[in-house]
Order: sequence, then structure tokens, then C-alpha cells
Amino acid sequence: MAAKRRAVEAKVGYHHGNLKEALLAATLQVLEEGGPSAVTLREVARRAGVSHAAPYRHYADLDALLADVAEEGFRGLTREMRTRMDAESAPGDKLRATGIGYVAYAVKNTARFRLMFGPQVADPRRHPGLHAASEEAFQVLVEAVQKAQAANVFPPGDVLKSAVSAWAMVHGLAMLYVDGQLDMRGIAKKDAEKFAAEMLSFR
Amino acid sequence: MAAKRRAVEAKVGYHHGNLKEALLAATLQVLEEGGPSAVTLREVARRAGVSHAAPYRHYADLDALLADVAEEGFRGLTREMRTRMDAESAPGDKLRATGIGYVAYAVKNTARFRLMFGPQVADPRRHPGLHAASEEAFQVLVEAVQKAQAANVFPPGDVLKSAVSAWAMVHGLAMLYVDGQLDMRGIAKKDAEKFAAEMLSFR
Repeated sequence: MAAKRRAVEAKVGYHHGNLKEALLAATLQVLEEGGPSAVTLREVARRAGVSHAAPYRHYADLDALLADVAEEGFRGLTREMRTRMDAESAPGDKLRATGIGYVAYAVKNTARFRLMFGPQVADPRRHPGLHAASEEAFQVLVEAVQKAQAANVFPPGDVLKSAVSAWAMVHGLAMLYVDGQLDMRGIAKKDAEKFAAEMLSFR
Repeated sequence: MAAKRRAVEAKVGYHHGNLKEALLAATLQVLEEGGPSAVTLREVARRAGVSHAAPYRHYADLDALLADVAEEGFRGLTREMRTRMDAESAPGDKLRATGIGYVAYAVKNTARFRLMFGPQVADPRRHPGLHAASEEAFQVLVEAVQKAQAANVFPPGDVLKSAVSAWAMVHGLAMLYVDGQLDMRGIAKKDAEKFAAEMLSFR
């Protein structure tokens, strides 16, 4: 059976070293081109050039595959924020850079960003890896807010609530860009980082 | 043909005075229960208890129906914000009340709110009614921000950009609630108005 499956895959052109990576990339491609409703395991397999059965070697169902794509997204978001945060030294600048990184990641990865926060992954808590990655991203914000509060450049208060306030600000800007609401009003996506920088001033 | 269609509808129990309202209500119901991917004209018709052909009397396609549901949403959002804004007298309180209204509307109407901003309506600009309703809602925010700026309780600056900043703040909070990100972190949706009030202080 396994041999037969391999034969079928060879016929449709399966030549990836890493099936999992091919599936993740194909999922993103389908999401970007056709939106959420276009994504099925069958279509992802077709796009990756593998058999219909191949995805099941890594994923029990579509939800599990989408959770993995979202998890990768949160890891990318964390890297984007942390790199920018670490490049600054003043606490206010660190928080601002973190926020800019959040918005920048969203506008560069709109389909993935929607998936990370949208209703497609039924319950993120059912996917421990996704849950952990999302928590890790949130903790970058918490850390930046804590530093800014300690330096008196962010309003004092409960750190969880303060981090959520900062999060809301950048998440809102990100979503309005992602959903085309700002382009529609003459605020172009290509200037997103500049706009975020203007909005986020903590001194 | 029309007579035949009426006969079929009678058979499946069509007894609504207003077909359009029945379709709008059914669409929301399907959205709330099954999410975006569950919504088809056929399923909406079934839920409304009308024939498969009935929706076409009002809507050319699913996109047009969804645009109408979103348009109704923006009108509801405008009412929610304006009522709360008008209930306050100080400009800072007006802006805060407007923002609280925004978040309150979102958490009370999660499925509709997602539709209003999500990718399901392919291009809002192709639907003049939807576009106008969305612009009207945005103008409530613009008005509240202008008043707050005139009273020096909101940072000065270009009014469009300032309004977008205020919008981002409440939109982010709204979306994080709608997408379950805050419940997951112990910030319950039922306290959304209180949390928004804490976050939005313009004095």
C-alpha cells in the first residue's frame, strides 16, 4: 500500500524533500488565491502535487493542517517583533518597534494573519503547538509594555490589561489594513509601517 | 413561472410578509451557527423556509445578499455609536462613549461584525449601499474625534489619520473579543464595555 502510494505520487510529480513543508506552502497559496472557502485537503494536495492521501501522513484533518499554518505564523510574528524590539535600546522605542513589527508582519502576510485570528481553526486551545506559539507572541508584547511602564513611558496599570490595550491598538491597525479598510480611505498599505510609527509614540 | 414558483413556496411553508427580511435573518442565523463556509443561497433559502429560487427575486447572487447583511450591520453600528455619543455632553466623554458603542456592537453581533470586515463580501466598493453605510459609521468616529481634538482631549493632527488611530484602537479590541483572543486570556466578553471604558480615557 505504501509502495503503491509512492508510485501514484511519483506519477503526479511528487519530488519534495519535505512533504510537510510542501503542504504548508500549498495551503498558504490556496488561502491567498482563493480565500478560506477554497481550502480543502484535496485542493492543498493537488497544489502540492501529491496524492489526495498524502496529507493524512501528517495531518488528521484540515483543522490540524490549518492550525499548523497558523502556528508557523505566530512564530514568524514573534521573530518579527523580537528582532525589531532588540534593535532598539530605549523602552519607549522598544515598545513602538514591537508594535510596528506586529503591523508589518500582518500586511506582509495578510492571508496567514487572517487565518491566525479568524474562525477557521475551530478551537486554538485544542492545538497545543498553536496555543503555545500564540502565547509566545503575546509575551513579546507583555515584555515590551512592562519595560515601557517601568520607564514611565506607558500608562501604569495591571500588566495584562495594559498589554491587551497595546495589542488592541496594533491589532486594530493590522486588521484594518488586512481587510482593505484603509486603502479604501486613501491610507495605502505600503505606508503601513510609517503610519504605525506615527500612531505609536511612547516617550 | 411566477405562479409555479409561488406554489412551490407555499408547499415548503413560505408565509413571511417580507421575503427580504426573512432572507437577511436566515443568513445571519446560518453565519452564526455554521460560520462563513456554511452560507450558500440554497442553505439560506432552506432556513428561511422558501424555495431555492426565491432569493433571486431580491439578490443576483450570494455576494449581493451578504453585502446587504453587512450594510444593515454598519447601520446598526452607526446607531449604537451615535446614541451613546449623543447621551454625553463633554467631548472626551462623547469620544469614549462612541468607542464603547463600537466595541459593544461587535461583541453583541460577532458573526455580523466578522462579515462586515471580513473577506466574504468580495469588494465592498461594488455595493454602493454597503459602501455608504460603512462611510456613515466612520463619520461618527470622525465627528467624535474632531470634537475631542477641538477640546484638546485628543492629540492634535490630521483628522483622517487621527480618526483612523481611534478606530484602530476600538476595532482591535472588538476583533480580539470577536475572535476569542481575550476570553482565552481571562478577559471575559461580558465585561467588554467596562474594559473599553478603562482603555478609552480622553480628558
